[in-house]
Amino acid sequence: MDDRKILNPWGEDLIEDYKRLIKKFGISDFKEIKPYYPNPNHLIRRDIVFGHRGFKLVLNSIIKKQKFNVLSGIKPSGPFHLGTLTTAWEIVDFQKQGGNTFYCIADVEAYEDNGIPIKDSFETAVDNVADILALGLDYKKAYIYRQSSEYRVKDLAIEFSRGVTLNMLKAIYGLREFGLYISAMIQVGDILLPQLEDFGGPAPTVIPVGVDQDPHIRLTRDIAKKFKKYNFVPPAATYHKLMRGLDGSDKMSKRNPMSYFTLNEDPQSIRKKIMNAFTGGRNSAAEQRELGGQPHRCNIYDLYKFHFILDDNELKKIYQECINGDILCGECKKIAIDKILNFIEKHNKKKEKFIDIAREILK
Amino acid sequence: MDDRKILNPWGEDLIEDYKRLIKKFGISDFKEIKPYYPNPNHLIRRDIVFGHRGFKLVLNSIIKKQKFNVLSGIKPSGPFHLGTLTTAWEIVDFQKQGGNTFYCIADVEAYEDNGIPIKDSFETAVDNVADILALGLDYKKAYIYRQSSEYRVKDLAIEFSRGVTLNMLKAIYGLREFGLYISAMIQVGDILLPQLEDFGGPAPTVIPVGVDQDPHIRLTRDIAKKFKKYNFVPPAATYHKLMRGLDGSDKMSKRNPMSYFTLNEDPQSIRKKIMNAFTGGRNSAAEQRELGGQPHRCNIYDLYKFHFILDDNELKKIYQECINGDILCGECKKIAIDKILNFIEKHNKKKEKFIDIAREILK
Repeated sequence: MDDRKILNPWGEDLIEDYKRLIKKFGISDFKEIKPYYPNPNHLIRRDIVFGHRGFKLVLNSIIKKQKFNVLSGIKPSGPFHLGTLTTAWEIVDFQKQGGNTFYCIADVEAYEDNGIPIKDSFETAVDNVADILALGLDYKKAYIYRQSSEYRVKDLAIEFSRGVTLNMLKAIYGLREFGLYISAMIQVGDILLPQLEDFGGPAPTVIPVGVDQDPHIRLTRDIAKKFKKYNFVPPAATYHKLMRGLDGSDKMSKRNPMSYFTLNEDPQSIRKKIMNAFTGGRNSAAEQRELGGQPHRCNIYDLYKFHFILDDNELKKIYQECINGDILCGECKKIAIDKILNFIEKHNKKKEKFIDIAREILK
Repeated sequence: MDDRKILNPWGEDLIEDYKRLIKKFGISDFKEIKPYYPNPNHLIRRDIVFGHRGFKLVLNSIIKKQKFNVLSGIKPSGPFHLGTLTTAWEIVDFQKQGGNTFYCIADVEAYEDNGIPIKDSFETAVDNVADILALGLDYKKAYIYRQSSEYRVKDLAIEFSRGVTLNMLKAIYGLREFGLYISAMIQVGDILLPQLEDFGGPAPTVIPVGVDQDPHIRLTRDIAKKFKKYNFVPPAATYHKLMRGLDGSDKMSKRNPMSYFTLNEDPQSIRKKIMNAFTGGRNSAAEQRELGGQPHRCNIYDLYKFHFILDDNELKKIYQECINGDILCGECKKIAIDKILNFIEKHNKKKEKFIDIAREILK
């Protein structure tokens, strides 16, 4: 398989071998710096965050309590789902670690990539922002903006256009359409926005992303170095693993609704998807009691690990029960359903209070 | 020669055979509508305006005194020169004919095409605007703007990016760099700006341009038809011939300073360029007295025809004297120098008064 295709932020291809990605694209191994990370969150502790680029500078700022920025965002093309939830944990945590926080509603991207007119994505954006606030982002200490109304981002995109060639874009993204290249340039604008003088000038900045977003990071680091007048610190990234499809497919995908669920989904639908989920179970109950389950192959276990069991001891306990064959998949799925529906119920209660605030922020 | 290369708005190639252009690119012959044009200016009367696209709608508005727009602009990469002067006559005249007038300072283009940072082109833009005002544009009835501060133009450019493919851009412009394609999209934004609701909505619009700008017009008309929600009237264009280089080169070019002069130039320098200009003279005075001169080959005659003799009778008189051999090139050049330096002196006096106004407009 063409490696360039693997790292595809527009999401058609499979992410499989993280070690190979580290080697092939020069992504740094997160394990080397993990011991120095103060109060690592569950994603770091569990090696879901597996790689980085240039993160040492940011880590240094965290340790020394010096200034750094964190930027993340969401494409308002649908409700918060299990994938966006991973990034959400990260930005909320980086904010707690002291990062100046930027949250971008990528509505220009939703238009260029998915053809959703800016006006139509507004209500989705309101919903998405209410989600991230309910998940713990402190909006009073964050700059939350829509790409379509942030002229500095568009101006940067236009300015940086002179610094890239079609060959560069083709090498990084493959042969894409013009609108998608524009969309990429807009993302570069987003990623460098926090370092403009308006926001206090150059500073270490981290972008927590799924590894499929690495092309944007590489392009942005290239451009940051090229436009010397800004004195940008080349932005850093942390890379997390991507969840597999619940139904046993390689990847969660909108084209395949059984592969994932959203935070807005009807509980009955979520229940059904979890009951149907592909696990690491054996051929028979007897076999499983004898050999134990296989959590490393199990999508239910991934749900716990990524999102729904934040306590390591609790996670270890269930892991142990699984590999010992003490708990079978049906029972485990019921536990998962309880935990998840409970999480979503609580989340939605918190979220309600943030809808009006979110609309106000995005106006 | 590749025809696509001929119509090159970024200006490296030769424009020679206008009839062929009309045929090849489906440009309409202006002669067919010329008889219906009320009070045609000298450029129309002299067939310097030789072609058009979709101009009948605009002509109809002129005749019936109905609403229409005219948009033109300048790239602030240097002083007003003989080429920009042609377009200037046209926009001033369309404004007199009743057109809602838009004048664009293409500073994003000056950046993308020529690498001139927006800040650095500001003073040039002030100077350019003072020129067009001194030439008769009524700024009180015109919308004069810089691309870099007109967010609607950039927003349109980004929106329209989804309507074009790299193949379309390649077919229209040839294989260019990414920044130049961005620049083209920005021009499309400019050309459609007058038809936004903010400016009164869809209306016939004419862009008077040199024929080398036809690619932008074709691209814009394509896009206007594609984005139906705006109900754009596909913008019309009038096409004027381009002046040859004074020194006998095919084309005026910045790379060849002897081929043209600017309105800011030192009179001694202009005098020298005219004295050195390539004319339609014969090998000897005797031969010229016998055979007469060849005004259709003469750059001095072109200076009269395009810019410096607006009265047709006066132009005919000098034409007659030339082909009769009654006037030789040396004498004619002296007349030209007097006329041109006199024009520039008067122009600069008028222009002085407009510098502060221009700066105010562009702030």
